[in-house]
Amino acid sequence: MLSSTWTFEQYKGAIIGYKIKDILFKEESDYQLVEILESEDYGKIMLLDGCMMVNEKDEFFYHETIAHMPMSLVQNAEKVLVLGGGDGGTVRELAKYSQIKEIILVEIDGKVIEASKKHLPQTACGFDDPRVKICVQDANEFLKTTSANSFDVIICDGSDPVGFAEILIQKNFYELIKKALKSNGVFITQSGSPLAQEEECKKTWKNLNLVFEHCNFAWSLVPCYPGAVWSFMLASKQDFGKYLNTELPKNCKFWNKEIFQALMSKPAFFTKLLSEN
Amino acid sequence: MLSSTWTFEQYKGAIIGYKIKDILFKEESDYQLVEILESEDYGKIMLLDGCMMVNEKDEFFYHETIAHMPMSLVQNAEKVLVLGGGDGGTVRELAKYSQIKEIILVEIDGKVIEASKKHLPQTACGFDDPRVKICVQDANEFLKTTSANSFDVIICDGSDPVGFAEILIQKNFYELIKKALKSNGVFITQSGSPLAQEEECKKTWKNLNLVFEHCNFAWSLVPCYPGAVWSFMLASKQDFGKYLNTELPKNCKFWNKEIFQALMSKPAFFTKLLSEN
Repeated sequence: MLSSTWTFEQYKGAIIGYKIKDILFKEESDYQLVEILESEDYGKIMLLDGCMMVNEKDEFFYHETIAHMPMSLVQNAEKVLVLGGGDGGTVRELAKYSQIKEIILVEIDGKVIEASKKHLPQTACGFDDPRVKICVQDANEFLKTTSANSFDVIICDGSDPVGFAEILIQKNFYELIKKALKSNGVFITQSGSPLAQEEECKKTWKNLNLVFEHCNFAWSLVPCYPGAVWSFMLASKQDFGKYLNTELPKNCKFWNKEIFQALMSKPAFFTKLLSEN
Repeated sequence: MLSSTWTFEQYKGAIIGYKIKDILFKEESDYQLVEILESEDYGKIMLLDGCMMVNEKDEFFYHETIAHMPMSLVQNAEKVLVLGGGDGGTVRELAKYSQIKEIILVEIDGKVIEASKKHLPQTACGFDDPRVKICVQDANEFLKTTSANSFDVIICDGSDPVGFAEILIQKNFYELIKKALKSNGVFITQSGSPLAQEEECKKTWKNLNLVFEHCNFAWSLVPCYPGAVWSFMLASKQDFGKYLNTELPKNCKFWNKEIFQALMSKPAFFTKLLSEN
């Protein structure tokens, strides 16, 4: 039991730190150091190799965006694939749609799921939905054995593309995604901060456009990530862009139709960044 | 000349730090310590008493929101008052409107203006517009001698309401604002982070509603401030809320009509906070 200390995450020339009251979980998995800490002001936080993944106070911005944005663009999505997302927050948001019949979550690190179920019930409650099937497997390997045209929505809710996650922005990976996606399906991936991780954004955009006929980009905010402004990229085999939901998902803290339109509205700072490719 | 060090700002249980390459300005004024530092990744930054006010990389989110939001709600605004805003960024955005005939900026600390003009030309370029008149004076004192019904738009671009800036969320201050505002005018103030400064948001909202018949609240993002999600509150003597601009202000990096609608769309996390008053 700690009386009080701090955890810091440096990203290039910036640092974010949180005051910590307690360490709830700290184990080295086959892939990374998994930590869940009790913070003073931001609820419980999960760090993977020292990088902030989730804090209970503001995780809703990220999870509502990555789940409801593609779900707002596909009519009657019934089958959804989540790659990564072992904390359960994305699945929690997807479970709000009664039309969905099956949610498959493919997380490489079982330790992340185990720690989240035990210590982050606010996000991991998504796993309680009977439509959710969990595969502890590498996303790329999963996709290689997936039948073509299987999913209405595919969500890549992974870590930054370094180390074992580097594959997540590669052209080969996007080709497997494209094969697994239905003809009117939508793929979304988090793609780093357009303020702090410019190269990651540009590389994701470039590779996505090499594979998909229709690509789109959106911004949102993730207060606890470096740069705070976040990017999401979308891809489809068909033209997309219209908001299709007739009803808003329940109990959202951030999401609404006006926010969807704004996040997709291509502000100039972001268009300029991607045009520099 | 520094080789490399860090500047840190703690707000409750969170810290943000920036790597610093050089100190460009550091002087104690009658009110506060004014510093302008050259950061490694975020351009030049201005700190007042150690609190981040501006960094060149992301200041556009804040300045575009606080200027274009009220300007989008008033037809043919000709006379605008800015209280605070000594870095010039808000004035720079206002100067984009050809309809505006006069912009009066009332900044208590002449040292902030002096330092900004010398070291932050990207924001302070707003002062070059011939329609801008600068008064180095206490905002409350200025308002006491202002004629009634003088301004179409009043913008409170001040520091957090502690110390000499505490007056900026008081009922008496809002009564002076109301008197100075034209009948169809709009007042906007920054009001802290709804994620990190909940009490400040609630107090501003409460006091504004004690004075004005019509109040409204909006969110935006200020990546370099504690919490990153920011709040703005608006007030008027008349009902307001419709977007009136026929043309977007030029050279905005963030602002557009969809973003205006989203920032005014009252997401549930914010409505809930203010209902706890």
